[in-house]
Amino acid sequence: MRDATDLPALLEVWPGLSAEARVEAFLTLPPDLAEPFFLARSPLGHAQLLQGMPESLRRLWLRVLAPDDVVDALQFMDPEDRAPFLALLDDATRREVQALMAYVEDEAGGLMSLRYARVRPEMSVDEALSYIRKQAKAQLETIYYVYVLDHAQRLEGVVSIRELFVARPEQVVRDVMRRDFVRVAPDTDQEVVAGVFAHEGLLAIPVVDADGRMQGIVTVDDIVHVVQQEATEDAHKLGGMEALDRPYLQMGFWSLVLKRAGWLSILFIGEMLTASAMGAYEAEIKHAVVLALFIPLIISSGGNSGSQASTLIIRAMALGEVRLRDWWRILGRELLVGLALGTILATLGIIRISVWGEAFDSYGPHYGLVALAVGVSLVAIVMWGTLAGAMLPFLLRKIGFDPASASAPFVATLVDVSGLVIYFTVADVVLGGTLL
Amino acid sequence: MRDATDLPALLEVWPGLSAEARVEAFLTLPPDLAEPFFLARSPLGHAQLLQGMPESLRRLWLRVLAPDDVVDALQFMDPEDRAPFLALLDDATRREVQALMAYVEDEAGGLMSLRYARVRPEMSVDEALSYIRKQAKAQLETIYYVYVLDHAQRLEGVVSIRELFVARPEQVVRDVMRRDFVRVAPDTDQEVVAGVFAHEGLLAIPVVDADGRMQGIVTVDDIVHVVQQEATEDAHKLGGMEALDRPYLQMGFWSLVLKRAGWLSILFIGEMLTASAMGAYEAEIKHAVVLALFIPLIISSGGNSGSQASTLIIRAMALGEVRLRDWWRILGRELLVGLALGTILATLGIIRISVWGEAFDSYGPHYGLVALAVGVSLVAIVMWGTLAGAMLPFLLRKIGFDPASASAPFVATLVDVSGLVIYFTVADVVLGGTLL
Repeated sequence: MRDATDLPALLEVWPGLSAEARVEAFLTLPPDLAEPFFLARSPLGHAQLLQGMPESLRRLWLRVLAPDDVVDALQFMDPEDRAPFLALLDDATRREVQALMAYVEDEAGGLMSLRYARVRPEMSVDEALSYIRKQAKAQLETIYYVYVLDHAQRLEGVVSIRELFVARPEQVVRDVMRRDFVRVAPDTDQEVVAGVFAHEGLLAIPVVDADGRMQGIVTVDDIVHVVQQEATEDAHKLGGMEALDRPYLQMGFWSLVLKRAGWLSILFIGEMLTASAMGAYEAEIKHAVVLALFIPLIISSGGNSGSQASTLIIRAMALGEVRLRDWWRILGRELLVGLALGTILATLGIIRISVWGEAFDSYGPHYGLVALAVGVSLVAIVMWGTLAGAMLPFLLRKIGFDPASASAPFVATLVDVSGLVIYFTVADVVLGGTLL
Repeated sequence: MRDATDLPALLEVWPGLSAEARVEAFLTLPPDLAEPFFLARSPLGHAQLLQGMPESLRRLWLRVLAPDDVVDALQFMDPEDRAPFLALLDDATRREVQALMAYVEDEAGGLMSLRYARVRPEMSVDEALSYIRKQAKAQLETIYYVYVLDHAQRLEGVVSIRELFVARPEQVVRDVMRRDFVRVAPDTDQEVVAGVFAHEGLLAIPVVDADGRMQGIVTVDDIVHVVQQEATEDAHKLGGMEALDRPYLQMGFWSLVLKRAGWLSILFIGEMLTASAMGAYEAEIKHAVVLALFIPLIISSGGNSGSQASTLIIRAMALGEVRLRDWWRILGRELLVGLALGTILATLGIIRISVWGEAFDSYGPHYGLVALAVGVSLVAIVMWGTLAGAMLPFLLRKIGFDPASASAPFVATLVDVSGLVIYFTVADVVLGGTLL
């Protein structure tokens, strides 16, 4: 008996192994462990094991996988490496795999399986049950839902195995089935499919084309992977980089550098504007060096409040809680939140400058005015950061980009440049005639 | 026939409505739409609707929910408001709800349902199927897996309905069932349960106590919610704030401010050290204002590279790809990545300063030395930022905190202070005798 608390132990060394070491470890497993272990690997794991194992073993292990899992594994191989694996499949499976490969990977069509239970509407419940019993000997993804197809493969209804169980044996499937069922199109985005699963609490959803013809089913176990994968992609984008397409430890060194260097360089070039902005205020800094001391404090506050706002809005958008047309309500709300947060930070800043100014004479005789300039700037910059962070995801979505690109570093860079201009403008007004 | 592409339209106005407006809209729904709509709401939605509707309707709608969904909804009510709802349940359901409420919400026990199909090991397959047929008339979560319990409610094995279907009718359940099955304990964390689902591709997992007694099942559709919820909590922490416990638009104004003000104030107080650090170099800034111009550029580069590294490691930890003991390998790898990234940014920075210095005489006669100081600082600070970002999640996990607290703003603040010290130290060495 295997206990799930042993599972982490069993898999502990796995993520850290190279592709070669994985194949080696896999081939030493006893046969009764090897098969469930193999089945539980990710598509990338399947691809690595299949490509790494001796050619004589490939046919055996390839045939352990269901057709949709074969498709997923092939996606992780270079296109020119796929043909030899396709040749190892039997004709029926190869046709199925090739049909599935025509779909885009991150749409419903790319997730679906062709192995679903089907019956005809005119069958009796008794006939349907024994027909399903025959199909169940093949490797169906699920027999929990049974799909009722007419002669042209059009999906007329869905009936659960439970409903067939409790119906009278002589009833006709057409009278037992549900005609009001949820379905998706082959090109429905996988994030939308995940949302449908989460809302509806279903175990499988049929994929139906524009003519009403049944294409396959997506099962909820495939969606758990999708939800995790989407969350990872979003997290990477929120961290200010391109999303990795495989696990961190499986990435090559230079791919890892390239995925990070792109955004980092863009941000760096954007941040160069801070040098230009500060250059414009060189005279003020020379005159009152005390002003320069608070620059990192002030611009980082704008960046941090912007990062909070953009993260909130991006995540709420991903979960469908906030839609494009909500932007106006959120603008008003976030302006007030920014005012409250800015006031809190300004209070902390004014206390700090006044205490240090009084106790250690750190900031010269006009420390009161410096505190005022910093306080007013903080309110303005935190409000501006909050507003920019909250609105940027809407703007990105509106022009067709992923809102998750409004990462903390991106928002911070935007706010840094404008924050400097706000700070020096406020300082000019407050300190004009005394320090400046 | 309902099309899932209509679902967004149907739900479009919902997230933006207040609790009162939701109840009002719900009560206008035609009866055949109201029930599926109600069932598809989140636990928070159930709680809002139940509390908002007239008392006369509460019993009806409360009884539409399965016991585990009642428990989830009650968790969103104040403890003192729960009793009247419990009183509306029939005795059997109330006992079930009270039993489930004893479990912690974010552990397997808090997710599980008691409505699973059960058979005895000594039954024949035929007896088992007709026994399940009887149970299927009650509201079972799934009949896909059937749990084989002995007289003391100990879980002896699991058999799928498909396996019963294809077995000979006279076989005994004990000879058909699997004894080697995955299970979790009532106190297994829900993130671990989600990981087990993702790895094993199961539709339901039994929850078994230390004595081997069956407690309930967790079904995969509940786990999709959990994975999304955990991803949201992590995203909020990565954005530098406390995780919200309900949807953005459902948060009250002051709760929203408080969830954000805490971390923002902590970061602000931490960032005050930059003012102290810069105060220590006031003489250098006075002497060479040109140095101050590059401060935002340099410290933000450290923050951005740190944000990338921490995000990568936090996400890899959440998916179980990276474990605590991998820290040493990752330290070496990230040091090299930091060196590569720092060199790229230093090159960009040196080009910028040299071109502007030559073309516009922006940075005085010693612009070559300024470029060198900025370049060297960038390599050092990007390496340090990358290292700090990569190691902080390990440190936090080691001392028992959530690694996701190593947010972009947190890492940036840490790197800002140390980055200033690095920059001015490098500048002192490179520019000593000329500019300084």
